[in-house]
Amino acid sequence: MNRVDIAILGLGTVGQGVVKIIQNNEKQWEKRCGAEINIKKVLVKSKSRSREVELPADAITCRWEDIVSDENIKIVIEVMGGIEPARTYILEAMRKGKNIITANKDLLAEHGQELFETAKETGVDLYFEASVAGGIPIIAPLKQSLAANNIMEVMGIVNGTTNYILSKMSKEGMDYEEALNKAKELGYAEADPTSDVGGFDAARKIAILASIAFHTRVRFQDVYVEGITKLTKKDLQNAKELGYEIKLLGIAREEDKQVEVRVHPVLIPAVHPLSNVNDSYNAVFVYGDAVGETMFFGHGAGQMPTASSVTGDLVEVISNMNHGCTGRLSCTCYEHKKIKSIREIAAKYYLRLRVVDRPGVLASIAGVFGNHGVSLASVLQKNGRSDGIAELVVITHMVKEKDIQDALAVINEMSITKSIENLIRVEGN
Amino acid sequence: MNRVDIAILGLGTVGQGVVKIIQNNEKQWEKRCGAEINIKKVLVKSKSRSREVELPADAITCRWEDIVSDENIKIVIEVMGGIEPARTYILEAMRKGKNIITANKDLLAEHGQELFETAKETGVDLYFEASVAGGIPIIAPLKQSLAANNIMEVMGIVNGTTNYILSKMSKEGMDYEEALNKAKELGYAEADPTSDVGGFDAARKIAILASIAFHTRVRFQDVYVEGITKLTKKDLQNAKELGYEIKLLGIAREEDKQVEVRVHPVLIPAVHPLSNVNDSYNAVFVYGDAVGETMFFGHGAGQMPTASSVTGDLVEVISNMNHGCTGRLSCTCYEHKKIKSIREIAAKYYLRLRVVDRPGVLASIAGVFGNHGVSLASVLQKNGRSDGIAELVVITHMVKEKDIQDALAVINEMSITKSIENLIRVEGN
Repeated sequence: MNRVDIAILGLGTVGQGVVKIIQNNEKQWEKRCGAEINIKKVLVKSKSRSREVELPADAITCRWEDIVSDENIKIVIEVMGGIEPARTYILEAMRKGKNIITANKDLLAEHGQELFETAKETGVDLYFEASVAGGIPIIAPLKQSLAANNIMEVMGIVNGTTNYILSKMSKEGMDYEEALNKAKELGYAEADPTSDVGGFDAARKIAILASIAFHTRVRFQDVYVEGITKLTKKDLQNAKELGYEIKLLGIAREEDKQVEVRVHPVLIPAVHPLSNVNDSYNAVFVYGDAVGETMFFGHGAGQMPTASSVTGDLVEVISNMNHGCTGRLSCTCYEHKKIKSIREIAAKYYLRLRVVDRPGVLASIAGVFGNHGVSLASVLQKNGRSDGIAELVVITHMVKEKDIQDALAVINEMSITKSIENLIRVEGN
Repeated sequence: MNRVDIAILGLGTVGQGVVKIIQNNEKQWEKRCGAEINIKKVLVKSKSRSREVELPADAITCRWEDIVSDENIKIVIEVMGGIEPARTYILEAMRKGKNIITANKDLLAEHGQELFETAKETGVDLYFEASVAGGIPIIAPLKQSLAANNIMEVMGIVNGTTNYILSKMSKEGMDYEEALNKAKELGYAEADPTSDVGGFDAARKIAILASIAFHTRVRFQDVYVEGITKLTKKDLQNAKELGYEIKLLGIAREEDKQVEVRVHPVLIPAVHPLSNVNDSYNAVFVYGDAVGETMFFGHGAGQMPTASSVTGDLVEVISNMNHGCTGRLSCTCYEHKKIKSIREIAAKYYLRLRVVDRPGVLASIAGVFGNHGVSLASVLQKNGRSDGIAELVVITHMVKEKDIQDALAVINEMSITKSIENLIRVEGN
């Protein structure tokens, strides 16, 4: 095989990045994967839009039919995003024997099973390195290099927008709105930032990672999600005083054949490798029974990092085609493990309360915690201002989510409690 | 294929780790790679030595012939180390059609070409993830996930022993001998620590990484090497005052189709991701033209991390056998790039001198630097003690190695110079 015809669905930021890499390294592909790469068709919504890359006019099409019915096209790269029509296109392409490379986390986290089953049936490759953590190699290492491990924990900063916002709040003392606006200015956050700041983007990614790590299907809807919108500058400052940073983490753990998968802000010790991952960088921390701790760090988004992963997959798929072994790296979800509800998980908690500033208040609150089996590791009482209100910052020992929630329900009803300002889990020690 | 017969050469620390992983996950292999794994033979020097793992008596042999002539053995795992007889065994096994997994950096860094050519000729797999950075997936990510990049820089802490020693010197103010002894006590350093502290172990690893990153053969003997034995507590303290940490790095860079490959102590900014990699941890920083900065972090040595990589390779090789595509991931050194001499490289330099403490001395020394085109970025003059000697710490701007060496040759001859205490390159900014 001397030339491979491929199609790209979508010519947005990432699609153009893929074209750039393919064109810039034109003379390298034969050496790197045994075949020249020919971009035969690119599916776009509008032919007339101006773009950063040049392609022959007859390569640009608005008709899916031009691609799916072209028997010479052996690989389809899907970088259009969204569920439909991406899902239908990918399924149709696989049924025509075309190999798939996708960066579509939404699709994989919701319809992964359907896609992988179809890939298996049809014997094609389905690669998706770019769907999690952009340019960082994490899917392949989990599926291959670490395949001999029983993975016990995957913990990641997998959303660059929120990490940028939290870095600005922590390092430069910005408040949430200010940092979000700065992120919008720089193009890190979208006009409607809900998917990022609400934790939903991270939830899709940790669902994909958990599925691979624990060999059991975890979908987006299985993930417990809290975003960063309730975090204040005060929480980030308190965290720092206590020796922590606050990060939005995707967390997936397995214990006794049960899996917990969640996305929420976390206090993480300043000495933990993840706490030093700042700005829009991503990092995924993996704990395996043989390898111990490992971490993968880099750009989690952006045109060229994402295109790097897509094109890396392309090199792999072409190499598989050349060696007649597409379908080699198939779905590894061969188990069915129970996914725990958030109320069953155990964690340490940071809690910030506003209470009446008078003697005996701390004792009353500590009493309620004690009644619910919640024991306190540290208490930081911030002196009351003239308004007679004190701020209480508490970190608990390990406790079940339901016990702390039950305790908080009681505390919330007490007359000495003005407000429960924030509850943030503590991880990583 | 339902069962794969394998042989392991060497039952030392790593060999026993591999046996543990295979035995502990006995019921998993069929699901993970499509076949049970049967350890048919293990080659040892002495059958009687007591070991952590149990194997059937007839699986243990001292005769290579029992393995190489057994046609059922399809995979040979070489974890005996050293050049011979490992080299001969691997070559013979490949010629018999057996796939190879090795953790042997010495062998790869010196005889890589011969091994890869033989693998290509015979169509077998030759995997070696464990040869660099122990448990950290770095070979596969470089060869596969990042295959679409033109890698411009690989910079790694790839020796855990020296990183442990430098961490102790930096964090706890130990001097070199004290930290080395501590490392020996903990089993991190060998009785003769030359290979680690002399930088030779790191040199083998960076040679392997450079070969993959730049698609050109780099051998151990091509690497410029300096160890950590000349570093003093004073240098680590000065570095910290200036905002740096000192690390032993393997550095490989490509520019204009020329490659530089070296191992030596480096001042690296405290904000660089590598500067926070402490104790016996390893990390490899990779800069690719598309992906930008990435870093891979974890345990660079030890029984189970190393066995994790070996057994991960085993899963891959079995999967390749099942899909009839062994030999798929072959040697990628398809170019011949020039390797620069150390005198041609450019860097910033940290320099510590002892000079006579009197007016005009700094001017004289600065004058010599100026004459050789060396310009100074910062100067730290430590007050002379009663002995009339001052310590001068200088950091230069970017300069060619030969220019600074020529300047130092002149300075060394000046009567005001008592001694040139240390010259350390500055990287990462």
